[in-house]
Amino acid sequence: MIISSHCRRCLFFKLIYLYEVPILSTRLVFLGTGSGKPTPSRGVSSVGLFREGELFLFDCGEGTQTQMAKSSLRPGGLKAIFISHFHGDHVNGLPGLIGSMVLGNREDPLTIVGPVGLNLWLSTLRKLNILWPSFQLKVIEVTEPGVVYKTESYRVSADVLKHRITCWGYRFEEFDRPGRFDLKKAQSLGIPPGPAYGNLQRGKSITLENGNVIEPDDVLGEARPGLALAYCCDTIPCEGAANLAKDVDILIHESTYPGGEEKMAKKRGHSTSADAARCAKKANAKKLILTHLSQKHPNKSIFIETCKSIFNNVIAARDLLEIELERREEK
Amino acid sequence: MIISSHCRRCLFFKLIYLYEVPILSTRLVFLGTGSGKPTPSRGVSSVGLFREGELFLFDCGEGTQTQMAKSSLRPGGLKAIFISHFHGDHVNGLPGLIGSMVLGNREDPLTIVGPVGLNLWLSTLRKLNILWPSFQLKVIEVTEPGVVYKTESYRVSADVLKHRITCWGYRFEEFDRPGRFDLKKAQSLGIPPGPAYGNLQRGKSITLENGNVIEPDDVLGEARPGLALAYCCDTIPCEGAANLAKDVDILIHESTYPGGEEKMAKKRGHSTSADAARCAKKANAKKLILTHLSQKHPNKSIFIETCKSIFNNVIAARDLLEIELERREEK
Repeated sequence: MIISSHCRRCLFFKLIYLYEVPILSTRLVFLGTGSGKPTPSRGVSSVGLFREGELFLFDCGEGTQTQMAKSSLRPGGLKAIFISHFHGDHVNGLPGLIGSMVLGNREDPLTIVGPVGLNLWLSTLRKLNILWPSFQLKVIEVTEPGVVYKTESYRVSADVLKHRITCWGYRFEEFDRPGRFDLKKAQSLGIPPGPAYGNLQRGKSITLENGNVIEPDDVLGEARPGLALAYCCDTIPCEGAANLAKDVDILIHESTYPGGEEKMAKKRGHSTSADAARCAKKANAKKLILTHLSQKHPNKSIFIETCKSIFNNVIAARDLLEIELERREEK
Repeated sequence: MIISSHCRRCLFFKLIYLYEVPILSTRLVFLGTGSGKPTPSRGVSSVGLFREGELFLFDCGEGTQTQMAKSSLRPGGLKAIFISHFHGDHVNGLPGLIGSMVLGNREDPLTIVGPVGLNLWLSTLRKLNILWPSFQLKVIEVTEPGVVYKTESYRVSADVLKHRITCWGYRFEEFDRPGRFDLKKAQSLGIPPGPAYGNLQRGKSITLENGNVIEPDDVLGEARPGLALAYCCDTIPCEGAANLAKDVDILIHESTYPGGEEKMAKKRGHSTSADAARCAKKANAKKLILTHLSQKHPNKSIFIETCKSIFNNVIAARDLLEIELERREEK
């Protein structure tokens, strides 16, 4: 591969080439997919969502930063971490990840969303010098269901899950994008190329020189739905999980136990793969990914076999599984 | 290998066979040997000392429990953890390790020794449900140099290191064992086999039927020195480290930087390999093992090359390095 150092475009390809990272994709990366205790073959809960240069983590179990180093993700673009609950296998990797970003001279602020207690935890860590962040930590303690993080392009909502302690599920949802611009139609309507095209794409009507008014709907196709994902971990079957999962493209749901072990699952505040499948079906999710799999079952097929009859489009996650996400229209 | 289930001796070998663990050895196991940030090839600070069925850890960085699972160590025999200081790369693995032992239904108490603040940290973790220990945590906050842990066979002392925050080094020291019993001499003195032999070995004099008094020194060889080890991490060169390392069999000393980078090392509160070698030489240590090696130097030979002229019996640790320890007399 010949790379010209004088060319910004080539520099861009050089970066991709050097780091072997598909930096423009939107993808999910499963950093830890086991429950309870990390093992050499399966870490504990953490899922990364990489979208347009930004990274979001859902939970941050011990070893998350090391798993990230083995994956295509890098912490540089990390914008926010969404913590479900305070059980150690969901949070014990957070202090180390923050500490390593400090050593890496991070300056950008980082948002941490999670249950009440985040401030107490982080302030204790600071007091003891376990953490000494050189960048701003924006802490959001969730106290009620609703939107917890929002930009112009997407929002993240939380809803109540039912576990042994306070636990939040999350829904990441892109806003619909305007429909595609119909160039032929614009030309046939006599719209001059230039700023008028942009105004119409941004939802503004324009008036032609002949006095005709053109509305955006005259030249734009149907609005294109954004991606929607839900992360429900840990929980017994509950309304909150179904709310979060409504019509999502991907539902990431805990499945500590395989189907058939509902009694034990409920007793421990968890779900089976069949419970997760019922949630996906009820919520009209497009695809179900099982995670938080008990380390007692090294063969994941049992989780799938015991739920596929309920919801067919299901897979069991494994550590470092990367899934490219395609928006519906692009499929 | 044929194993009889009726034979206790065979059951013992069966255990060794099944777990492939040299359960009777005394050994050091380096679980994490990097500084600052764990990487897939080098974890952060933790060293295990396995001795007569008991396990001790010095520091417990993130990933310690996963590294342990890759090594010959198991947490079942863990008696005590000695924490040097509160920087995350020395402590972030502790909550997860304790949590996993809870999941493993541990009942034995565990001693945790470390700087003032341990109680605040652990009580915060309990309050948030990050930890919910099912067994007793005996916390010892070190406030001054001296013995911090002691049994009939050994003691552990702490001394002050000089780092950016309060930091303790530790010395693990077996008490001298009585000299070997000289059977031929006992027979020549007319001592009858039986309880008299045991009493002499336990340091008690005995009186023979003919009225002769036999002192232990009459039948015992010279006292056999126990093992002594020192763990000094993190520190600049200081008196405390030299005190701890006095005449030890093994000095485990931090070496964040290779020799020649003393200026930077001192500025950051650390040592070079040459600093560690000077400490080993000054203290008359028998062997030096460098750890807490900067991740910036994947090739460890630079640490050795820059200190070997000062102290020759030196190695640089790597993750999962296991070193069998032999007592002096047994060499």
